[in-house]
Amino acid sequence: MRYPDPLLKLIAIFKKLPGVGAKTAERFAFHLLDWPEERQVEMGRIIQETKNLLKLCATCGCLIEATSCPWCDKNRRNQKIICLVASPKDVFAIEETGSYRGLYHVLGGLLSPLQQRGPSQQALQRLKTRISEDQIEEVIMALDSTLEGDATALFLKKELASLPVSISRLALGLPMGSSLDYIDGGTLSRALAGRHTY
Amino acid sequence: MRYPDPLLKLIAIFKKLPGVGAKTAERFAFHLLDWPEERQVEMGRIIQETKNLLKLCATCGCLIEATSCPWCDKNRRNQKIICLVASPKDVFAIEETGSYRGLYHVLGGLLSPLQQRGPSQQALQRLKTRISEDQIEEVIMALDSTLEGDATALFLKKELASLPVSISRLALGLPMGSSLDYIDGGTLSRALAGRHTY
Repeated sequence: MRYPDPLLKLIAIFKKLPGVGAKTAERFAFHLLDWPEERQVEMGRIIQETKNLLKLCATCGCLIEATSCPWCDKNRRNQKIICLVASPKDVFAIEETGSYRGLYHVLGGLLSPLQQRGPSQQALQRLKTRISEDQIEEVIMALDSTLEGDATALFLKKELASLPVSISRLALGLPMGSSLDYIDGGTLSRALAGRHTY
Repeated sequence: MRYPDPLLKLIAIFKKLPGVGAKTAERFAFHLLDWPEERQVEMGRIIQETKNLLKLCATCGCLIEATSCPWCDKNRRNQKIICLVASPKDVFAIEETGSYRGLYHVLGGLLSPLQQRGPSQQALQRLKTRISEDQIEEVIMALDSTLEGDATALFLKKELASLPVSISRLALGLPMGSSLDYIDGGTLSRALAGRHTY
């Protein structure tokens, strides 16, 4: 005998979350049934209303709550340097390091040669216009060190070559606290190539 | 800079799911922001309404949708044998094996000597009454083979000793497809003790 329909629906919707398979979705669903009803209602409400309470900044594409974007703040951020990231989530990760005080620009995704997902001309034009009009001096590409990240970086480097802006990319090398035993050859050879005097 | 408040709320509510930590909850939340709004609204609705669409059978405690309980069905199930389980989820797992056609009885939890969670006298009385009134002949205790499961089984065995019913418990032994290399000593010694002629 299979699960009752309402339960199947609940399991199906949990399975749409990233990394959640059938077993995990079942655990979530049965766990929810044990919750007091107020908490279920609250969870439903929060999920429904979040999208309306958040928006993306029209200038940088960062996730913001209010009308003014704290990441574009003229008084607190260096207006001459832009950090390019793939998604709004990356902004928070970089911000948490406390090592960056410039502007951000969210690409909204990476090029994927395998999935034949190309660059959006609109997004590219928006970036170019921003660099020219705001007289940006440096663009830091904070992209994944994956096939897609590499493809995107290469593509952007070509596209931005005509603009008077210096382009950099995050350093490749050993992650902090790592042991050479566990480092793959690709990372190790990039760490060797990028060695610095000590 | 931390996440906007609505996003923090969404992350917090996801963290209440079992096995979901801060990182996973963040992934869920950002994933949700990429969903079309209809799907978010649907998820919220399903979560809110599931509890109202499901209930527990007053007789056996199984999770059911309609008014009549398919697990208590007089025409289709052996009415002389009861399978004791800890939670409604276990019923589906046992049912899926196709090896059992009797009744069920959901205990709603196990005794936990460590957490000093004792047996509910009410639940115990309900079970005893059911066994007597329905002239049950066998009780199969399908409980976890953990400290809590063992404690519950021992307790129930004592409590039900006065009733004219035979009591059994699931066999302990090697899981299917397992290699002796990876079996713990406890399981192995129980498998030895429970060996059968072949």
